[in-house]
Amino acid sequence: MIRTAEQYIESLRDNRVIYYNGEKIPDITKQPKFQGSINSRALCYVLYDHPAFKDLLTIEENREKYLFLWKQPKTAEDLVRRRELYINCMRWGAGMSGMGPDALAASGVTAARCDRELGTHYTEAIEDYRKHLRSADPAITGAITDVKGNRGLRPSAQEQHKDFYVRVVDKNKDGIVVRGAKIHISATPTANELIVSPCRAHREEDKDYAVVFATPIDAKGIKLLTSPGYSEETGEEAEWNWPASGRSGGVSECMITFDDVFIPWNRVFLCGEWQFSRTQAWMFGVFHRLFGTCHKVISTELAAGIAALMAEYNGIERYPHIQEKLTWLAMHAALIDITARAACEHPDYFEDIGLATPNLMYTNISKYLFADGQHQCSKLVADITGGIASTVFTYKDWMNLEERPYIEKYLAGKAGVPTEHRLQAIRLAKDMLGHGHDGAFIHTEGSLAAQKMAMYVAAPWDKYKAIAKRVAKIPGWKEQPDLKDLPDLPFQRLI
Amino acid sequence: MIRTAEQYIESLRDNRVIYYNGEKIPDITKQPKFQGSINSRALCYVLYDHPAFKDLLTIEENREKYLFLWKQPKTAEDLVRRRELYINCMRWGAGMSGMGPDALAASGVTAARCDRELGTHYTEAIEDYRKHLRSADPAITGAITDVKGNRGLRPSAQEQHKDFYVRVVDKNKDGIVVRGAKIHISATPTANELIVSPCRAHREEDKDYAVVFATPIDAKGIKLLTSPGYSEETGEEAEWNWPASGRSGGVSECMITFDDVFIPWNRVFLCGEWQFSRTQAWMFGVFHRLFGTCHKVISTELAAGIAALMAEYNGIERYPHIQEKLTWLAMHAALIDITARAACEHPDYFEDIGLATPNLMYTNISKYLFADGQHQCSKLVADITGGIASTVFTYKDWMNLEERPYIEKYLAGKAGVPTEHRLQAIRLAKDMLGHGHDGAFIHTEGSLAAQKMAMYVAAPWDKYKAIAKRVAKIPGWKEQPDLKDLPDLPFQRLI
Amino acid sequence: MIRTAEQYIESLRDNRVIYYNGEKIPDITKQPKFQGSINSRALCYVLYDHPAFKDLLTIEENREKYLFLWKQPKTAEDLVRRRELYINCMRWGAGMSGMGPDALAASGVTAARCDRELGTHYTEAIEDYRKHLRSADPAITGAITDVKGNRGLRPSAQEQHKDFYVRVVDKNKDGIVVRGAKIHISATPTANELIVSPCRAHREEDKDYAVVFATPIDAKGIKLLTSPGYSEETGEEAEWNWPASGRSGGVSECMITFDDVFIPWNRVFLCGEWQFSRTQAWMFGVFHRLFGTCHKVISTELAAGIAALMAEYNGIERYPHIQEKLTWLAMHAALIDITARAACEHPDYFEDIGLATPNLMYTNISKYLFADGQHQCSKLVADITGGIASTVFTYKDWMNLEERPYIEKYLAGKAGVPTEHRLQAIRLAKDMLGHGHDGAFIHTEGSLAAQKMAMYVAAPWDKYKAIAKRVAKIPGWKEQPDLKDLPDLPFQRLI
Amino acid sequence: MIRTAEQYIESLRDNRVIYYNGEKIPDITKQPKFQGSINSRALCYVLYDHPAFKDLLTIEENREKYLFLWKQPKTAEDLVRRRELYINCMRWGAGMSGMGPDALAASGVTAARCDRELGTHYTEAIEDYRKHLRSADPAITGAITDVKGNRGLRPSAQEQHKDFYVRVVDKNKDGIVVRGAKIHISATPTANELIVSPCRAHREEDKDYAVVFATPIDAKGIKLLTSPGYSEETGEEAEWNWPASGRSGGVSECMITFDDVFIPWNRVFLCGEWQFSRTQAWMFGVFHRLFGTCHKVISTELAAGIAALMAEYNGIERYPHIQEKLTWLAMHAALIDITARAACEHPDYFEDIGLATPNLMYTNISKYLFADGQHQCSKLVADITGGIASTVFTYKDWMNLEERPYIEKYLAGKAGVPTEHRLQAIRLAKDMLGHGHDGAFIHTEGSLAAQKMAMYVAAPWDKYKAIAKRVAKIPGWKEQPDLKDLPDLPFQRLI
Repeated sequence: MIRTAEQYIESLRDNRVIYYNGEKIPDITKQPKFQGSINSRALCYVLYDHPAFKDLLTIEENREKYLFLWKQPKTAEDLVRRRELYINCMRWGAGMSGMGPDALAASGVTAARCDRELGTHYTEAIEDYRKHLRSADPAITGAITDVKGNRGLRPSAQEQHKDFYVRVVDKNKDGIVVRGAKIHISATPTANELIVSPCRAHREEDKDYAVVFATPIDAKGIKLLTSPGYSEETGEEAEWNWPASGRSGGVSECMITFDDVFIPWNRVFLCGEWQFSRTQAWMFGVFHRLFGTCHKVISTELAAGIAALMAEYNGIERYPHIQEKLTWLAMHAALIDITARAACEHPDYFEDIGLATPNLMYTNISKYLFADGQHQCSKLVADITGGIASTVFTYKDWMNLEERPYIEKYLAGKAGVPTEHRLQAIRLAKDMLGHGHDGAFIHTEGSLAAQKMAMYVAAPWDKYKAIAKRVAKIPGWKEQPDLKDLPDLPFQRLI
Repeated sequence: MIRTAEQYIESLRDNRVIYYNGEKIPDITKQPKFQGSINSRALCYVLYDHPAFKDLLTIEENREKYLFLWKQPKTAEDLVRRRELYINCMRWGAGMSGMGPDALAASGVTAARCDRELGTHYTEAIEDYRKHLRSADPAITGAITDVKGNRGLRPSAQEQHKDFYVRVVDKNKDGIVVRGAKIHISATPTANELIVSPCRAHREEDKDYAVVFATPIDAKGIKLLTSPGYSEETGEEAEWNWPASGRSGGVSECMITFDDVFIPWNRVFLCGEWQFSRTQAWMFGVFHRLFGTCHKVISTELAAGIAALMAEYNGIERYPHIQEKLTWLAMHAALIDITARAACEHPDYFEDIGLATPNLMYTNISKYLFADGQHQCSKLVADITGGIASTVFTYKDWMNLEERPYIEKYLAGKAGVPTEHRLQAIRLAKDMLGHGHDGAFIHTEGSLAAQKMAMYVAAPWDKYKAIAKRVAKIPGWKEQPDLKDLPDLPFQRLI
Repeated sequence: MIRTAEQYIESLRDNRVIYYNGEKIPDITKQPKFQGSINSRALCYVLYDHPAFKDLLTIEENREKYLFLWKQPKTAEDLVRRRELYINCMRWGAGMSGMGPDALAASGVTAARCDRELGTHYTEAIEDYRKHLRSADPAITGAITDVKGNRGLRPSAQEQHKDFYVRVVDKNKDGIVVRGAKIHISATPTANELIVSPCRAHREEDKDYAVVFATPIDAKGIKLLTSPGYSEETGEEAEWNWPASGRSGGVSECMITFDDVFIPWNRVFLCGEWQFSRTQAWMFGVFHRLFGTCHKVISTELAAGIAALMAEYNGIERYPHIQEKLTWLAMHAALIDITARAACEHPDYFEDIGLATPNLMYTNISKYLFADGQHQCSKLVADITGGIASTVFTYKDWMNLEERPYIEKYLAGKAGVPTEHRLQAIRLAKDMLGHGHDGAFIHTEGSLAAQKMAMYVAAPWDKYKAIAKRVAKIPGWKEQPDLKDLPDLPFQRLI
Repeated sequence: MIRTAEQYIESLRDNRVIYYNGEKIPDITKQPKFQGSINSRALCYVLYDHPAFKDLLTIEENREKYLFLWKQPKTAEDLVRRRELYINCMRWGAGMSGMGPDALAASGVTAARCDRELGTHYTEAIEDYRKHLRSADPAITGAITDVKGNRGLRPSAQEQHKDFYVRVVDKNKDGIVVRGAKIHISATPTANELIVSPCRAHREEDKDYAVVFATPIDAKGIKLLTSPGYSEETGEEAEWNWPASGRSGGVSECMITFDDVFIPWNRVFLCGEWQFSRTQAWMFGVFHRLFGTCHKVISTELAAGIAALMAEYNGIERYPHIQEKLTWLAMHAALIDITARAACEHPDYFEDIGLATPNLMYTNISKYLFADGQHQCSKLVADITGGIASTVFTYKDWMNLEERPYIEKYLAGKAGVPTEHRLQAIRLAKDMLGHGHDGAFIHTEGSLAAQKMAMYVAAPWDKYKAIAKRVAKIPGWKEQPDLKDLPDLPFQRLI
């Protein structure tokens, strides 16, 4: 079954315990700060039935239609399709989340291996859960990152309490009881269920922490403490001020706390087999890089676009140093794309369990290049946009009819570009750059280019050239005042 | 005369026309968003009379006590004192602004040269203005950056209108009339007067733009459109959420528009002598680098401190890659300091006009290193702090007594560090990093270190080593499956 | 026809005028400094008939067997095969040169376009030349780079003489007469013929420089001035001292001078159509990137191997900073490979002329990453190998039986690795790094790691942490001596 | 006493056992490969008595004149003088070596501390040695780096033998017996004596390795295995081909082996006090950074000069990207200088022993910046010089009168620059860059600038800009073919 968008939205009105900026929220669908994220995810359900998408997003098996993501990838084609699915939905603006599907795919690998080596039966639980996913079609997410406490200590060696990593505190014939907290869990307020996995390898003493399970998000004992969204505004003001994150950003990240939550055995996918925690964490990572690099194709192409647009609007697109910066951005965007695509086209095959996973080397290269280059991206966008990304006016300034004529007149750029377009491009740049000081700081007291120019003017070129001439025995250096007292080289031959 | 802090605050209740986020503000001293900046600047007036500071900040001449910054620097000692003055006030938290004093110093140089070469008398106007500064002690700022329009066109060649750079539109025996707009002008809402300078060199056709003058900020025809501050909150909430900018940040940056503003001749320091616009812009830069690098000593030392603190609170201070990152931050902070200090200790002397200015090469190196390294600073702080800099809870979450126990338990770090301290350190890191996606983006789907580890694991080391062994004729490479079909090098000798 | 290796070697005994280090060489096949290059290229002829290679390297058409490289690529498959052909021959150690085939492919594109637009008939000359290549099987090279004179002036605007770029000085019914010089032309001493192309775009005034042609290398008026090889030694000593370049390096690069050389019309592929010089230079570049990136796959994998081997031999392969450096090298090698392969798999198609060329963006990314990262590669290899890459002993030291016991004892590394193996690996590293000071200079007075450690120790961490605590309002900073006189922030509230 | 240059040269004709490239050298003053280094060091003795230098280089105490370097620095002025002394001698071309004086200074600190804490009497031995230095004036060097074996194991844990670090193998009432080898020891063939120090910290089990001593270089049991010089040529050919290293380079680096060498107690400065090995190694480093950074001022200014000269000779000095590269080189040179000078001006004081040492943070920053930037320096010099640095002709080519006219004509650069000057500048660049492939590799198949240009041309700017416009809601993006099927954002509002 594939639910409708309306069914999905209705399903969020459940018993979840959720806080936002110090307030408990009784119904998130009524809270404006959540509506962006909810709408964005609801659009996925629209696409599942959209003529341009349904063949890509869903499959039909035994007359049952379900989401392609619930299927374990077995070939390069499956991985390429997974990638296209993510990218296409993202391009349309649907809030596709990979956390859940990636945790599911990882759990499938871990369970298969654990069952084969240790004779456990976790694969049955996973199959049962897949059946549930296919029939009930819940929105799921995956919880990986623990709160961790002292990062220098293992889970079982933590000093203040033992709950810095999610762990099993009890078990009986019906299921297990878990305690702890997961943090930075994306797409949680908009999810119905979640799969919880360890985020690291374990040793035997950590075996209580070796637990993988699925649970409804409104189960007894679960609390969601959301992180603030990117901006304070909502509605049209948010969209104008923050063209990218104001539209779909909303509240999305959560700390999820587990106060002795009960999980029935048919939702437990690992419990105590500490040797396999590493597999689960690693495999989640492998699949989640595929998802992550899709996001990054979107965001790096957007960054290249913002920069190119601002260069044009500012009238500086012909300057060599601007073209060099734009070139770097285009190269960066292309690199993320080429390497991530190659990871799907040339996957790693696990013959023992009949699966294909994104090429480990390639997918990590793609993700690494992105993360390593992110601040360089921002630096270049800030450099090209100018200090205005820090000081640009707001929606309310623009709506004030006394201010607007001044803004319109003085914030104009190249002739032919309406000031409002330039303003929107600047707000988009600002949305990428945030309120951080970085952009401001590279411009205050003069741009990088201004400093280079001043250094070029200030540098003692005549002296430097004379130094080289003296060593190379090229005449003319003795006229240079700084060198006039120096002898020829060597100034004497004794041997 | 040196005014009291109270006199200073009172003086801001004048006729200024000022807008903030779409609203016209009748009295900025009553508007909470402005109070941080005002208080911060008012503290300078406290220091002028503080026993630990007054010998540094003020001088007495002919029984008149006035601010040291009104004096033109003539020696290395003057520059070193100027630097110490800025740094010490900043360290105390007083909102010292260099824009005004630096514009004044630059105007002194420009006027001296112009008068000497062209026989003008601008130095007299400047001396008159210095006298006014000494007796009335207004808070001043300096306006440099024009709105610029198409950056690829000169001022007089702009297409949409001719006011993208401030220019003289009329003049008579009493003074001149100016039109245009200046943007990103710091410390403007907290100032009484401002000195306006060109921001670039001019040719003869741009001579209407070659104008330097001083004016009260509430003169007829001036409007101030402020840029939004760093955060929405005010008061204690702002200070908790944004420990650095929430306290003193407030609203500070302005676009200043000039609707045919009248300037009397005794406040005009350049008017039409286009050959000297370059001197003014350049000299402002030279002095303003000195100020800017003082700020940067403060901020880079703070960044090194944030990172070292977070490393300790997270329990990761012993990891080699963390120590390497901390080392870079310490080196960066030291470099800014060493080079900026050397610029004062080894100044450039202008014998024609008897002045000393910060060493052009050194001061630009200092500023360049800072700006060029700013995003690297942020990257390292984000890397060490962790994803929590993006998702950390707010003041209101912390004040909610249902949420607090969870936050207190789960956001604890190393034993012995109260969670609230860790929270405050994280909020400080977030304040540095802003709401930008950069920090989040380097952590989502795994940290940089995680990717490197995965690549190290995935790389075909045996193959690579076998390749090297084959070339170096070291036995053992033939066992490597990827190379097993390759011949020795050279596989045959024909000659 | 495909010649034998012996026929090829014999063909080099022609009338060529060639100089090496100040001597005119009557028969290069007798000169030891040339034998490495000659043997290496002769091995290609062995491979043309080798069972493992012939299906890859040659094609048969109308019962005529000829080199696959003489065929113009039309599909992604053709490009992938071209790439495999180059890489496989290089891996075997055969001295495949791409200059000639790439110039040929470029000439095919240029001629097709010029003929179509201007009604010329250059394609006929090219077809005639291809026929000659298929039947006579000469070894060819391509000459692109001109000597250029003042790089700031166009060819026809050069001041000292007009021959800084190869140009047509005369023409008649039989052919044209050319003058000028080409420089850095690889694979020339080992070639029989060469194709000459412009290296830049032209304007109408440069039309005499718009010339493409083929010629035997021993034509009247051609002189070859070779560049020195990488080392002085020859034979076994060269191979021991320089395991990579000592074997096949030899003399390879030439300046080729043309003293009014006659070229018949059936070898002229462009003459005066200045609008197409750009096409020729650009297309040569596009094809030659494909070749170049094959070389770079070989050399970056070798660099990763050298570094991994030296890390192991030195016993440092477990240190995190070493693993980080190795990871960079592996990532770099993989990136060159992924991007260059993607350029062939996803080519640009030119439908007007029915051709496929390597994807312009991807192939340039691959080449750029290589060149941009080359010095970083060398830095990391030098860093891991140690100062010994600068000071390692020679073949003659090793052969001296008084020295050898000392070398054997003291240059041992990790137990289990024969000293000679370590020596050979070091010599290979040295061969990559050359005699340049770079490697020595990063180690003299202590390694980079030593400096970082010292800075970490020297940095004022307590002060920095106290600075951050003060801003974050975390108690404890007042105990820090450097801060003890500072007040709380803000030290007073006035408003 | 200060010896004459002749006395110094005569003193090298002693019993030293020395090998060069497989040959035992009976008298190094007769071997041309050694004469450059010897002459260069002999020039120091000329300067000691030179009117422009003697006040800087020597001091007189109790009517005894001796080298300033034998005095332990106690103040900032001493350190500044030490720095000036090194830099001035280097600028004149005298082969000043810091290894010996720096080892001496370090030994003074170590002995003072060890004596104070453990009641030993090493300071007496050092004073005795200083007396010997003042009266006999030998040329000394310092040996630090051990051969090390497996770098992952401590000295006493080495597996193959115990001599990878120099150690005491016997001791009696007269002295001690040492065994082991030191490597990369500069200035050894030209020295008379050497001071041997550990290169690392020790634990108690390594106490036999905790030994510092001085010895004549021709003592029984010492063998010197020299490393090859930078080039094969000698005399005028060497100087023309390698303008910097060909003149003074020669053979300089040694592996020094100790076959049970006897050291009398009055030359033993530490023996078994393992706690102080770290002090010795560390202090040597601190002093040697001062020396090293002097060298680096010389070499970075030279690199900036070479690049500026080549830019001019090639006619490219006006291109923005060239100016940007030159600016980096000038900034780099200035940074090394500023930071190293500041390390002397603001030293660390050790009040316990009354000494001043270069500021630990600053001196390491200076050295680190140099080493870290060395490959960047080379990359920029190679980039600006061009591929010709790899393929430039030799002295013998230039001397061949058939080749010279071609070289003279075709290797000319900008008009007004004699070709020979350009050749000499290129040879100087090549001397800096070495025969390594780095320079060649960044130019083969096109320069970095060419790749950037191609990528700029190839990048899909219209698509990128349309992507940004769509997000920013700026009209016009739907016309872009790649985006034409995408909906507005959000494509639907469900909530």
